[in-house]
Amino acid sequence: MVTRKEVAELAKVSEATVSRVFNGLGPMKPATKVRVLEAAKVLGYHPNAIAQSFARRRSGNLGVVLPYMPKVHLFSAYYFAEILSGIGEQVREQGYDLLLSLLTPDDDLDYGRLYRSQKVDACVILGARDTESQRRSLLELQEQGMPFCLVNQRFEGLSFLEVDADHVAGSYQAVRHLLDEGYRKIAFLNGSPQYTNSLDRLQGYQKAMLEAGLTIDPSLQFEGNYSRTSGYEIAAKLWEIRDQVEAVFAANDRMAIGLMQGLRERGWIAGRDYAVIGCDDSDAAKLSDPPLSSIKVPFFEMGKGAARAVLASVGQGNNEVGLQVKLPTELKIRQSSKSGIVRTDS
Amino acid sequence: MVTRKEVAELAKVSEATVSRVFNGLGPMKPATKVRVLEAAKVLGYHPNAIAQSFARRRSGNLGVVLPYMPKVHLFSAYYFAEILSGIGEQVREQGYDLLLSLLTPDDDLDYGRLYRSQKVDACVILGARDTESQRRSLLELQEQGMPFCLVNQRFEGLSFLEVDADHVAGSYQAVRHLLDEGYRKIAFLNGSPQYTNSLDRLQGYQKAMLEAGLTIDPSLQFEGNYSRTSGYEIAAKLWEIRDQVEAVFAANDRMAIGLMQGLRERGWIAGRDYAVIGCDDSDAAKLSDPPLSSIKVPFFEMGKGAARAVLASVGQGNNEVGLQVKLPTELKIRQSSKSGIVRTDS
Repeated sequence: MVTRKEVAELAKVSEATVSRVFNGLGPMKPATKVRVLEAAKVLGYHPNAIAQSFARRRSGNLGVVLPYMPKVHLFSAYYFAEILSGIGEQVREQGYDLLLSLLTPDDDLDYGRLYRSQKVDACVILGARDTESQRRSLLELQEQGMPFCLVNQRFEGLSFLEVDADHVAGSYQAVRHLLDEGYRKIAFLNGSPQYTNSLDRLQGYQKAMLEAGLTIDPSLQFEGNYSRTSGYEIAAKLWEIRDQVEAVFAANDRMAIGLMQGLRERGWIAGRDYAVIGCDDSDAAKLSDPPLSSIKVPFFEMGKGAARAVLASVGQGNNEVGLQVKLPTELKIRQSSKSGIVRTDS
Repeated sequence: MVTRKEVAELAKVSEATVSRVFNGLGPMKPATKVRVLEAAKVLGYHPNAIAQSFARRRSGNLGVVLPYMPKVHLFSAYYFAEILSGIGEQVREQGYDLLLSLLTPDDDLDYGRLYRSQKVDACVILGARDTESQRRSLLELQEQGMPFCLVNQRFEGLSFLEVDADHVAGSYQAVRHLLDEGYRKIAFLNGSPQYTNSLDRLQGYQKAMLEAGLTIDPSLQFEGNYSRTSGYEIAAKLWEIRDQVEAVFAANDRMAIGLMQGLRERGWIAGRDYAVIGCDDSDAAKLSDPPLSSIKVPFFEMGKGAARAVLASVGQGNNEVGLQVKLPTELKIRQSSKSGIVRTDS
């Protein structure tokens, strides 16, 4: 069978342009269109006719819903930037544009707006939280057959199209690494339990601790909000019980870096006086002083996979059946969690 | 006069929601709409009628055109992330959505596609370069009265709506700082001359050098492509003429960091064996080892200003008259350019 790629090569255009011609997505230079159609004729290329007829009524946009986060430069957060880059690569390959909807404080419940106004054919929803109103809004979308995909969030008891990383395994890897390095008093700095990945990470932490025959001490568990500032503030609390802490696992790099900064001001250097490991494996982890050990989460691939999956479901009728995809995480060891720490106060 | 803000407060919604109601942008929960209209009635709020009639034919989307950059995680580049965050904040405040168009290698000339398909009301164009085809395409947009704004790029002899930083002054500040610290043999690592900010930075470098009574030595000028890798590769070339170099000004932080890494492998440590200053003042500058001195460029504000300016021009008839906005830069001194370097080989 003749492929889109062969048509693209003969017509000397990208595959995305071939898609645009056959899906009728947006206008195009007549000369380009003629070149693509001629190449298709020469090669005998026939894209699926049903898919085409669906396509003609489409916007050619994939929607991305971004949460309301006051004061945050959203695109500068490693998490969102990487997921968006992955989504962007996929839509470019398929000839779609990307419609970003930045939620305001009072319209976070109306996910349907973008579909009803025919702005998008499908949506990827980022930064969702498990609240009653979000559940209601997502169920509504599902009932109306509007294709969407969640990234990095589940809703217990509900089944949607979801792309996530295996955060339980990632968290387990992190704590297991600290245990292997000889640490026993391991604190856990987590994010809000409204995010399923916080719950997953707690589970991985508990599993590794219990397997090692250690007890789960609630006084060694702290809750931040995934910001650097929250990690910095928790350094003060952790400092008060420093006799009980040898190592810290933080649920993202930003909080780990804030914690390192707060403890450094009190004289505790990571990788010397205590060990710390973060999560995300962001650029900041490689550049921090000392370099931060971290759990690599494949955000780019998650974004790309979510876009691919949700666009494949467009025009397929219903999206009643959920599908959960989980990508693997990877342990990256750097100086901040090195063993051989000699503690004078223990 | 009653403002949108007062209506928003009384109706207990955001200002963006008030705009949506009065501009007819997309559907909305009936209860919210009623609340806004009642609040407007109580307060006697009357938005401009002509603006409204224009609005009804609008998409409610601001387009952003992103360049084709193979292998780059576009949203993870500090430059694009900050500009997009600024654009995002502005469109959210005005109740717009953001339509991102990621160019493919062969459609970079067809800026008009988004307007013709009524996907956008206006565009911000990022990553433009001064080539014949881009000039032609932008002139076409201007003639057709399609509102657009360029960020960080000019076209000599043409006059568009442009938001930029004062790169000549920024570059001058950087080189002036190195001169003040006592350096005389100052190399310059620039980006491609297809970008006007590269030309501006060259101008600032030359001005500072000539003012100090120094000659401009072409053998001390290097060209990278604004990537970390290109800075790393140029370290090898610079190493060959190391006797002639005491300090380096790099046109962005990524190239400066790559250069520092390449020279470190050869035994030269920044801030000890030579001085270096970058440009952008990205997160990486603060986290690099040693921390990198840099010229802060207000990308976030540039993005926000570009979105504000181009949305203000929607429905104003023609955009024949260009407008150039230049925001100031700021010198951030860190360890990499500290004085007091003792050179044994000079």
